[in-house]
Amino acid sequence: MLLHRAVIPHLRQACRLKSAPSRLYIRACSTDDSLQPQCPSLAFSGDNSSTGGWKVMGTLLGLGAVLAYHDHRCRATQESPHVYTREEVRSHSSPETRIWVTLGCEVFDVTEFVDLHPGGPSKLMLAAGGPLEPFWALYAVHNQPHVREMLAQYKIGELSPEDKVPSTLKTSDPYIDDPIRHPALKVNSQRPFNAEPPPELLTENYITPNPIFFTRNHLPVPNLDRETYRLHVVGPPGGQSLCLSLDDLYKFPRHEITVTLQCAGNRRSEMTQFKEVRGLEWNIGAISTARWAGARLCDVLAKAGHQLCETEAHVCFEGLDSDPTGTAYGASIPLARAMDPEAEVLLAYEMNGQPLPRDHGFPVRVVVPGVVGARHVKWLGKVSVEPEESYSHWQRRDYKGFSPSVDWDTVDFDSAPSIQELPVQSAITEPKDGETVQSGEVTIKGYAWSGGGRAVVRVDVSLDGGLTWHVAELDGEEQRPRKAWAWRLWQLQAPVPAGRKELNIVCKAVDDSYNVQPDTVAPIWNLRGVLSNAWHRVHVHVAP
Amino acid sequence: MLLHRAVIPHLRQACRLKSAPSRLYIRACSTDDSLQPQCPSLAFSGDNSSTGGWKVMGTLLGLGAVLAYHDHRCRATQESPHVYTREEVRSHSSPETRIWVTLGCEVFDVTEFVDLHPGGPSKLMLAAGGPLEPFWALYAVHNQPHVREMLAQYKIGELSPEDKVPSTLKTSDPYIDDPIRHPALKVNSQRPFNAEPPPELLTENYITPNPIFFTRNHLPVPNLDRETYRLHVVGPPGGQSLCLSLDDLYKFPRHEITVTLQCAGNRRSEMTQFKEVRGLEWNIGAISTARWAGARLCDVLAKAGHQLCETEAHVCFEGLDSDPTGTAYGASIPLARAMDPEAEVLLAYEMNGQPLPRDHGFPVRVVVPGVVGARHVKWLGKVSVEPEESYSHWQRRDYKGFSPSVDWDTVDFDSAPSIQELPVQSAITEPKDGETVQSGEVTIKGYAWSGGGRAVVRVDVSLDGGLTWHVAELDGEEQRPRKAWAWRLWQLQAPVPAGRKELNIVCKAVDDSYNVQPDTVAPIWNLRGVLSNAWHRVHVHVAP
Repeated sequence: MLLHRAVIPHLRQACRLKSAPSRLYIRACSTDDSLQPQCPSLAFSGDNSSTGGWKVMGTLLGLGAVLAYHDHRCRATQESPHVYTREEVRSHSSPETRIWVTLGCEVFDVTEFVDLHPGGPSKLMLAAGGPLEPFWALYAVHNQPHVREMLAQYKIGELSPEDKVPSTLKTSDPYIDDPIRHPALKVNSQRPFNAEPPPELLTENYITPNPIFFTRNHLPVPNLDRETYRLHVVGPPGGQSLCLSLDDLYKFPRHEITVTLQCAGNRRSEMTQFKEVRGLEWNIGAISTARWAGARLCDVLAKAGHQLCETEAHVCFEGLDSDPTGTAYGASIPLARAMDPEAEVLLAYEMNGQPLPRDHGFPVRVVVPGVVGARHVKWLGKVSVEPEESYSHWQRRDYKGFSPSVDWDTVDFDSAPSIQELPVQSAITEPKDGETVQSGEVTIKGYAWSGGGRAVVRVDVSLDGGLTWHVAELDGEEQRPRKAWAWRLWQLQAPVPAGRKELNIVCKAVDDSYNVQPDTVAPIWNLRGVLSNAWHRVHVHVAP
Repeated sequence: MLLHRAVIPHLRQACRLKSAPSRLYIRACSTDDSLQPQCPSLAFSGDNSSTGGWKVMGTLLGLGAVLAYHDHRCRATQESPHVYTREEVRSHSSPETRIWVTLGCEVFDVTEFVDLHPGGPSKLMLAAGGPLEPFWALYAVHNQPHVREMLAQYKIGELSPEDKVPSTLKTSDPYIDDPIRHPALKVNSQRPFNAEPPPELLTENYITPNPIFFTRNHLPVPNLDRETYRLHVVGPPGGQSLCLSLDDLYKFPRHEITVTLQCAGNRRSEMTQFKEVRGLEWNIGAISTARWAGARLCDVLAKAGHQLCETEAHVCFEGLDSDPTGTAYGASIPLARAMDPEAEVLLAYEMNGQPLPRDHGFPVRVVVPGVVGARHVKWLGKVSVEPEESYSHWQRRDYKGFSPSVDWDTVDFDSAPSIQELPVQSAITEPKDGETVQSGEVTIKGYAWSGGGRAVVRVDVSLDGGLTWHVAELDGEEQRPRKAWAWRLWQLQAPVPAGRKELNIVCKAVDDSYNVQPDTVAPIWNLRGVLSNAWHRVHVHVAP
């Protein structure tokens, strides 16, 4: 609920004229300014739609009328402090039922404000029917006096006393200890928890805030204690194994890098549209970027006495998450990558300056830059060097690519290599499919990334389904040669050709090996729906 | 003296209106696209100024006026066949004195043409005041009827009888020393020599026989002597440089590897079918595989005292081939690759158990596994470590990829990285396009390769244009992980669906980063026609 900058002074002025208490209230709240937005510049990115909203309201009704409406709501609140249950609030999550949200124990009907939300209506709708706190925590710019004042005008009541304390899970299922998640996440599976940030948040920040970093769990989240946690590193034959506490791990040289993680199933839903696959219905958000800190795996392996050997070998990882039979999640990477200091494989204990969140592997996970997410084993319990790849299901019977001609009757998992480096990828996060864009000029945003440290060197964007192309502007950090582990965000402002009623927006990226994305999804379809990296396509209407 | 493409249609039109002879001339001109400039990059490097020239001429005078000027000159020549000495010709070598050249015993004033020279004014100025023959010998594309006709319009007279004998400047052919080539080679350009093996021979052998290994020369082949040959390796600042004889090079540990080389322009002819590009018309044969032996570059650099440094650096190579101005062929690769023993960069002196053939760099060439052919500098004369990439034309103004939206008016060569690793590639060598195959069963053969040591893990083949797919059988040597420097040959025996009168055979490869080839060529089209790696398509008839 950000106010458009241009509007704030007017509102402030209006409030001053109206009442002293309002002003006092603002002052009381102003201490919240110490909370910094994750990326302040992005906080106002939905600027245009806000302007549009205010323009509509301002033009049709005039600012006075808008404020009169606010007054009406405020008076209504004063007159009848209604009491609602969380259940009732939850049922108001669409324009049809009206849109309610809560902050603390207060309930607000923000239906009329949705279109005025400076971050865009879609951002506010993420919170519809629930609490605002998780979103305000993410985008701290909301913690401003004028925002709270604005919100106060929409207050319609309070939560019932029994709902004022947060609800808790009461069942004894294996997932009972799973952490509380951010409500903005689009959940593809609750148990195990798998969720992605919505497109409109995904590229708001170059560094994905921890609470909305995509989560890919295969099993319940283990509840580990930093004091008793131990990492077992098996030594070479005849050598000595290591048993490392978190403090032991801190003693290795700290290494910090920005790395994008992507699930092999990112964009699987597009494959499903062509033909059914087995797997979670990921949209374009099974990818996120964080700043990771930890010990280099090569340093830890060296300490345990391991060396690079002539014959092919693999470093096998085991998680401390396990299924009811006690089988732990596992995966492996080639020893050559693990031992290469330039490959920067980490045993990470920090994510964006914080201890790893539980969903992301607290207290230690593997981070293998440029490699599919499945090898970044979380809640790491054991590391060993083996002549063969991990015998884990996820290494040998999953996360492999096949020809479109292969089905579940004919698949031979041994015939394909396990996915390690991922291919070049890109997607459009704005506008969204089916959206209506203004004529004149359209702003298109998205991300692009490639595996193996290959830098994205160009993103081509088409408005006509791929007949003609524009070159997008690449944002984000400068990429190191051969170590371009993180994505590039990109955007393009392009004129909408006059008279066009719809646009078929397409993006495709090129990496520094000049690999490109394939045109269409059908020829790369595979039974597990992995490696979905065809051109991303978004169809939008143009406002008349 | 190629005409700028944008101008050709206008010229065509103008000439049709003017005179029949002119029309003939223009028709001859339009065939010119099949004839490639000897060094396309050089021939067109002055493109902008050429365009500028036409623009100025066209805008200020109008095309009619330009042609009228030509007519005037022609008439003048007919009326007064002046006689000049070579001395007089020599004195006309600048715009101030006017620019004269000779061809045979004829003298031409090309002052007005200099700015129109498609190869750029600077190239033509190299011949100012003297004979054209040495340059035409180097860039044999000039030896075309329409070029001679064009030149005829600038004739101002003839050489005096005593000067008609060849001048002191020998017009001897710089290519006269080029080696004899195998007649099987499909020649794309004689001078410099560029040729590829025909598809039917290309995949007959996993190792390409030396005589039919594709040849990409940018300049005449130098005639070097094994006894006097020296390789100059510049030492680090304060260090000592090396001057290595061939015998010195033999003293380094001998390293032998199988490596596929591919020209960036391989399969350019498919791009041309979509839209014209500038470059040699390579079919699918600008790729070949050999067993190379030599010293590792990292060993030689280490001997000279070079170390891997923290800052980005480049190893620059200079060939002993050079153009008339003495400019040598040059290219560079990142120091990190050069110094990495695992990257196996060679200073090769043997090709398939033989000393290097002259066409392939005798006595020493660079072999950079997994990297575009243009960096495998032949007839290697000098190696140095520099903070920047080679300043060579071929590093900075050629061998780069661009968006399909970029044309010669908008191209910014600095905006794209030089091609190093190449993307995944495959092609069908059997059957050939247009062939008639027997009903029953069809055998399809081809090659597949990827850059950067990425192994080809699968080749999909379709008989129906990409609707359904078969997995081909991969032949060839086992690939080493991360060092899959050589291609995989593949084949598929597939039943021809009953009743089919034709087959649209398609192949596409997948490498171990799961990169794939794009479906179609148009979206990867680029003005130089490099990186052509869309699905390869062959249309065949089925015998009734």
